[in-house]
Amino acid sequence: MSGETTVALVLAGGIGSRLYPASRGDRPKQFLPIGGDRSLLARTVDRADFADEVVVATRPRFADEIEEHAPDADVLVEPDGKDTGPALTYATHRIREEYGGSDGDDDLVVVTLPSDHYVGDDGAFQKAMTTGTRVARETGGLVTFGVTPERPETGYGYIEPGTKREAAGEAFHDVARFHEKPDAESAREYVDAGYRWNSGMFAWTPEAFLAAAADSPLAPLVEALDDGDPEAGFAAVDPVSVDYAVLERAATVAVVDAAFAWDDLGSWDALDRVLAPDGDGNVAIGDHRTVDAADNVVVSDDKHVSLVGVSGLAVVAYDDRVLVVPKGEAQRVRELVALLEEEGSF
Amino acid sequence: MSGETTVALVLAGGIGSRLYPASRGDRPKQFLPIGGDRSLLARTVDRADFADEVVVATRPRFADEIEEHAPDADVLVEPDGKDTGPALTYATHRIREEYGGSDGDDDLVVVTLPSDHYVGDDGAFQKAMTTGTRVARETGGLVTFGVTPERPETGYGYIEPGTKREAAGEAFHDVARFHEKPDAESAREYVDAGYRWNSGMFAWTPEAFLAAAADSPLAPLVEALDDGDPEAGFAAVDPVSVDYAVLERAATVAVVDAAFAWDDLGSWDALDRVLAPDGDGNVAIGDHRTVDAADNVVVSDDKHVSLVGVSGLAVVAYDDRVLVVPKGEAQRVRELVALLEEEGSF
Repeated sequence: MSGETTVALVLAGGIGSRLYPASRGDRPKQFLPIGGDRSLLARTVDRADFADEVVVATRPRFADEIEEHAPDADVLVEPDGKDTGPALTYATHRIREEYGGSDGDDDLVVVTLPSDHYVGDDGAFQKAMTTGTRVARETGGLVTFGVTPERPETGYGYIEPGTKREAAGEAFHDVARFHEKPDAESAREYVDAGYRWNSGMFAWTPEAFLAAAADSPLAPLVEALDDGDPEAGFAAVDPVSVDYAVLERAATVAVVDAAFAWDDLGSWDALDRVLAPDGDGNVAIGDHRTVDAADNVVVSDDKHVSLVGVSGLAVVAYDDRVLVVPKGEAQRVRELVALLEEEGSF
Repeated sequence: MSGETTVALVLAGGIGSRLYPASRGDRPKQFLPIGGDRSLLARTVDRADFADEVVVATRPRFADEIEEHAPDADVLVEPDGKDTGPALTYATHRIREEYGGSDGDDDLVVVTLPSDHYVGDDGAFQKAMTTGTRVARETGGLVTFGVTPERPETGYGYIEPGTKREAAGEAFHDVARFHEKPDAESAREYVDAGYRWNSGMFAWTPEAFLAAAADSPLAPLVEALDDGDPEAGFAAVDPVSVDYAVLERAATVAVVDAAFAWDDLGSWDALDRVLAPDGDGNVAIGDHRTVDAADNVVVSDDKHVSLVGVSGLAVVAYDDRVLVVPKGEAQRVRELVALLEEEGSF
């Protein structure tokens, strides 16, 4: 294959444990039909139709089930689950081998998409991806997609835009700086200052990314991949996010505006933002009844959930598990999952 | 049969809908193993060993299952479920036919016991029942059992004791007055004044009770029973409690002290009083995990319930149903059940 090729790389190796008990050790978040009829993964693959090819990367444990959600995609199985840094390095390397032309891969662009996020269904997503692909191809640099914030969210990282530029007729900014998840006051300042949410979506040529990775804590993995020994490469690196390992260290990164509705569905309170509320502000998936109950999130597979006189709770019933947590503390499901993992019951 | 005979009449026709979803249309509260290994009904029958015979009265819908919980008891099936007034009239009449001597039933005493209450397991129960039986036999009057209050409970009716008396060497009081469930202030006054909780347990000779019932709104039923037509009798009366229809109207009623731990387990908050709490004040039946959660009631059949950062809730998971309600509003489950009954899903 040669000429201009765009490969959408869908990352489906995560677990999304804060959505316990819908997510479990053997049923990651991306396999769940949250905010739609089909799984988050299936809908991500659908949205990737801007690309010429779709590759789904996952960890060994989830490999067999990917086909149910993405029957037409190529599946790449990572040697091990070690966060997005190793995953993207491995996948980008493999995609270069598979889809790069024998005459070099200058025109191959990889667009990485998390498989467990919510994206609003309008044309803005396709437009942003096309723009980012062009910028990555034209500049030969690393491109991030920065979502316009809708609120001073403390659960997301922020991108501070720098100099405005143009390439192939498309506008973008240099990234001035990446900012970690802020406190509430900083979040308000970031939003006022026009910072973007870091969406975890990227575009790059394999050469650009692998060069940056070779100059990062992921260098031993890049070297091992060049030597054809991915297992040794994975063994040589620690789990690390691609943001921390590569993007935040790279000399120049571009940010392309993502003007679509987006949510990382990180925890149960997120459903407030992607589901339509009833007259009392409750949002629900599944069979339920409320009596004088307001502003709750109710999620059930095949069970009937009743709420009487409660507000601000997330109540989730999936197979033989039930969870109750205030929406405002939904992040703390992480603490619960750590306990359940310890006792082998996650 | 003749001579002194005591029949324990266990009332097992109720539903206990405020314990939804453990109680359901086809699984009443008395079939549940709350606060013990065996069902409330089975434990009630065990406790009735002070009597010569045990009769379990129930409505047609539950009749088949009674044997599982009370294999050695006689079962009386009421024509219809119409509250304790008609149930006790029918059962007392039938018991007189069955167990009364051909030479009159002066020495037959019926002791009625609700099948869905909690009673502490010590000798005080047997002692009180024996006393009540003697007083009923000796005085030929209606006897109630009055529990010494442990707190100013607003969920129970109260008995105001009058003149102190003695019969067959046993002390009791005349009932000065029955008081309906009070408000909080009245409840405190009642407790300070030495009133007793109305436990819903009674002792009487069939003659004493049926004479009082014949002089009450239940008169048409008594008449029909004398004529051998219980169905017509049930059709002729409305559902009504025995307290309201008979006891509160009777000229003289005795109250015998019941010095045992007792709870009517009327709603989920009652479990606080009959189960041992963990270090955070949570009480639980079934598999569960708490993270920074205090003072909750957790009940589950075979599900695993997790509570994170919540307090003061009742969370109940039974078969395909889940309920969340603040303990302080546990009475409101009644409202929920009314809605579920309307839609045929109780």
